[in-house]
Amino acid sequence: MRITLRVIGIGPGNPRQITLEAIDALADVDAFLVLDKGGDKHSLNAMRRDILSRHAAEGHRVIEVVDPPRDRSPADYDAEVRRWHAARAALFTDVLTHEVPDGGVAAFLVWGDPALYDSTLRIVDDLTAHSAMSLDVEVIPGVTSASALTAAHRIAANRIGEPIHITTGRRLPDTPAGADSNQIVMLDGDLAFRRTADPDDHIWWGAYVGTDDEILISGRVADVGDRIAAVRAEARERIGWIMDIYLLRKR
Amino acid sequence: MRITLRVIGIGPGNPRQITLEAIDALADVDAFLVLDKGGDKHSLNAMRRDILSRHAAEGHRVIEVVDPPRDRSPADYDAEVRRWHAARAALFTDVLTHEVPDGGVAAFLVWGDPALYDSTLRIVDDLTAHSAMSLDVEVIPGVTSASALTAAHRIAANRIGEPIHITTGRRLPDTPAGADSNQIVMLDGDLAFRRTADPDDHIWWGAYVGTDDEILISGRVADVGDRIAAVRAEARERIGWIMDIYLLRKR
Repeated sequence: MRITLRVIGIGPGNPRQITLEAIDALADVDAFLVLDKGGDKHSLNAMRRDILSRHAAEGHRVIEVVDPPRDRSPADYDAEVRRWHAARAALFTDVLTHEVPDGGVAAFLVWGDPALYDSTLRIVDDLTAHSAMSLDVEVIPGVTSASALTAAHRIAANRIGEPIHITTGRRLPDTPAGADSNQIVMLDGDLAFRRTADPDDHIWWGAYVGTDDEILISGRVADVGDRIAAVRAEARERIGWIMDIYLLRKR
Repeated sequence: MRITLRVIGIGPGNPRQITLEAIDALADVDAFLVLDKGGDKHSLNAMRRDILSRHAAEGHRVIEVVDPPRDRSPADYDAEVRRWHAARAALFTDVLTHEVPDGGVAAFLVWGDPALYDSTLRIVDDLTAHSAMSLDVEVIPGVTSASALTAAHRIAANRIGEPIHITTGRRLPDTPAGADSNQIVMLDGDLAFRRTADPDDHIWWGAYVGTDDEILISGRVADVGDRIAAVRAEARERIGWIMDIYLLRKR
């Protein structure tokens, strides 16, 4: 059995921030595989449905796969993440075998770009390694949430010649001096910058960037840190979920 | 006089890797401003003409501005770059005043994304600071060459939870330990990884990514470093210019 498995970056949330290449890639898909991560992400699901209804073929199918359970506080973080990805791979192998025809195309939609803090390519690697199927993998790049953030603030990510460090809230305290001139921080539910940044550092923060709910705040950390925390908590409560990101720049 | 100045990311070279938002943004532009950087970038210019002929309005104008001269080996690198940007700003103010109607729209096309190692937003900042015109600035994000590289190699930019460091060939030797687990290196005409990387580090290199001329090489630095250098030199000679990028991962 041979299947094309396509991983399609659809941009960070604005339905116009999708590429022509991604639209081409949506057109001949037999089945879209969607990970149901639980929680209340209704707006995201609605945006995905909107994209599919505009660009996917008539009669396309969407198969929701319920995420296997995961230990969020394991003794060995990396081992638990690997175990969890293997469990996902077994689930998807089962789904592909039953739901996609030989020679058909299955696709994952990925918010933003598949290369950046997304586990889909690891699921695909696990599938390739563990499955008896012959899989042709294709990856379509997308606009990252980092690019959407800097565009919304109308700034460059770096000052002249400087490097850019992309990291997570969890890892932000580990960034070594000399790598922290411009940091783009993702997946930070705790706003870790409030513990790591200098008061004079500058922050450009954004939530729901590119959507109708977009919120942008920027300024000195000492001036806007409390406001970002308050606005973030209020928006998360009101909308039911939040997707945010920020650029932190050393003075 | 009031002008909308639009900075449009058009993706890294593949004309299908442009977003719907960018296509919308091209449609009502009075004048496209193009920096003639000299040299032999005919293929890039041809791609840009192709994008404009597909998406820009009939009768749109393309105004080439010849880049002011620049000292490539200055005593003070940052000061020289700033002087050079100011000279550019004066040139563009002159062009905008004479070539764009009051209330009109002028646009810069930027390869990849405007936030990443591109000087257009700095030119725009200089214009905003030094010009008597009233400028409304809009920025449209694009797919980065980093995303196109990782998609072409079908890999994620990071291993689980790790940060990603984006830097230039010039700055690569300065990346501190602890920030170098995954480095994306741009603007590296000297292939600086050959002096900085460990033999067991892994490299994913790409040139002309997403175009018909695409070349991809990956492997252990010790195994593929010489081949990348030879292939790069040959391609640059044959095609007349080169645009390449790589991901370097610590073992």
